[in-house]
Amino acid sequence: MTVRDIVATHPRPTDVDRDLLVRCVEECIDCAAVCTGCSDGCLGEPDAGELVRCIRLCLDCADVCSATARVVLRQTEAEHAVLRPVVEACAAACRASGDECARHAGHHEHCRVCEQSCRRCEAACDALAASLG
Amino acid sequence: MTVRDIVATHPRPTDVDRDLLVRCVEECIDCAAVCTGCSDGCLGEPDAGELVRCIRLCLDCADVCSATARVVLRQTEAEHAVLRPVVEACAAACRASGDECARHAGHHEHCRVCEQSCRRCEAACDALAASLG
Amino acid sequence: MTVRDIVATHPRPTDVDRDLLVRCVEECIDCAAVCTGCSDGCLGEPDAGELVRCIRLCLDCADVCSATARVVLRQTEAEHAVLRPVVEACAAACRASGDECARHAGHHEHCRVCEQSCRRCEAACDALAASLG
Amino acid sequence: MTVRDIVATHPRPTDVDRDLLVRCVEECIDCAAVCTGCSDGCLGEPDAGELVRCIRLCLDCADVCSATARVVLRQTEAEHAVLRPVVEACAAACRASGDECARHAGHHEHCRVCEQSCRRCEAACDALAASLG
Repeated sequence: MTVRDIVATHPRPTDVDRDLLVRCVEECIDCAAVCTGCSDGCLGEPDAGELVRCIRLCLDCADVCSATARVVLRQTEAEHAVLRPVVEACAAACRASGDECARHAGHHEHCRVCEQSCRRCEAACDALAASLG
Repeated sequence: MTVRDIVATHPRPTDVDRDLLVRCVEECIDCAAVCTGCSDGCLGEPDAGELVRCIRLCLDCADVCSATARVVLRQTEAEHAVLRPVVEACAAACRASGDECARHAGHHEHCRVCEQSCRRCEAACDALAASLG
Repeated sequence: MTVRDIVATHPRPTDVDRDLLVRCVEECIDCAAVCTGCSDGCLGEPDAGELVRCIRLCLDCADVCSATARVVLRQTEAEHAVLRPVVEACAAACRASGDECARHAGHHEHCRVCEQSCRRCEAACDALAASLG
Repeated sequence: MTVRDIVATHPRPTDVDRDLLVRCVEECIDCAAVCTGCSDGCLGEPDAGELVRCIRLCLDCADVCSATARVVLRQTEAEHAVLRPVVEACAAACRASGDECARHAGHHEHCRVCEQSCRRCEAACDALAASLG
């Protein structure tokens, strides 16, 4: 797994728990891609008009997850005063997107896949935030 | 000013105060560009080794400001449960980056320009967050 | 104008023409914001279903413009073999998005504003690419 | 693998070869993360001053790969006139970053990991571009 490799080869590892850090980065990256795909899948549905809120929240979630993955990945001069609110904001974006996808998961497979990715990412962000003390 | 135009032509404006919204988006966009330029200016300095913390915090700030600009710009189905923590995380990133740039503002013009942009963006994020009730 | 300031304070300016560089960055930043706003405006329209292609192309254009702004802004160790194809890809994204917005500019003000921003950005990218020799 | 799942559940799949599309997205996502980690690893090295070019090219590559992953992932109303130059620009960014990391791969493990990721991503972009006819 390449994220773990690049984290492990850092010359100045942070004091953040490495397993929690790697898991958070991996889930953010996955969730950013899945939310991009889900918003695009929603846009291509015949009932796209019913999915406007889902599209919007998935776009937000993709943007926040992408930024969070980068901030969490960086270990040089890590700053908890930035890391913590960023990870907490990401959990909030995942929660909103996951809750909305859950409403459509019975009708649209991409929403089902996306809900699961959002839930995993929210949990990974919560776990990392909790570890920051 | 194009950001104001695109916000003003939205078919379903949010209940968020428009002036605060536009100011926040404009400052986030500016700060993202300036932090990208400052991290790159630091990297090109003969004393880049002294500026490692500044480079890192500016890269974080650019990523968080870029994501925040997008989330705040979107008015369709705006969700305060996402908007507020995202804007608060952005203020935190601007504060860290602005504080670090302030330490180098006497020696490097790009840090002086960047500190000012970070301070304005932090204030714009704080004002928007306060308005969300 | 802050982009010009941060470009001007760089310790190792590139040999790229500064006016063309600044214009390209400013237009990419503007176009990224305007395309984000236009895709969101389209999503909020009663006839969003007619605007699916416009939403998709504006999302692409916003992503490509954001990346291009960052690559062009960086002056340390600038590499034309990267800069040129990136700027050309950005011109292509602006052209597609501008052409599609033009089809809706009579009905939707955000498409009219967005078409103009896309045209300006395409021209700025073309001018920069032409200068790279 | 979640990228494959979200691509496979799209209601309107493109005519682009699915295996090439999925591989390109997966490699772009991986390369964006690895380049972010490598630039940060370089920044934390005692000889960071020797790695300025590597940091810069990895930052570019991360930005271009992130945008490319999104453009390629979107299947609704896919536009080859955008897709092709974006994927070609990404291959160029990966080539420059991979070549520079190769120069440091003997001294820095993160550069070795990053070179490999850049090479795989370049190949995946080339293969997708070639398939677009």
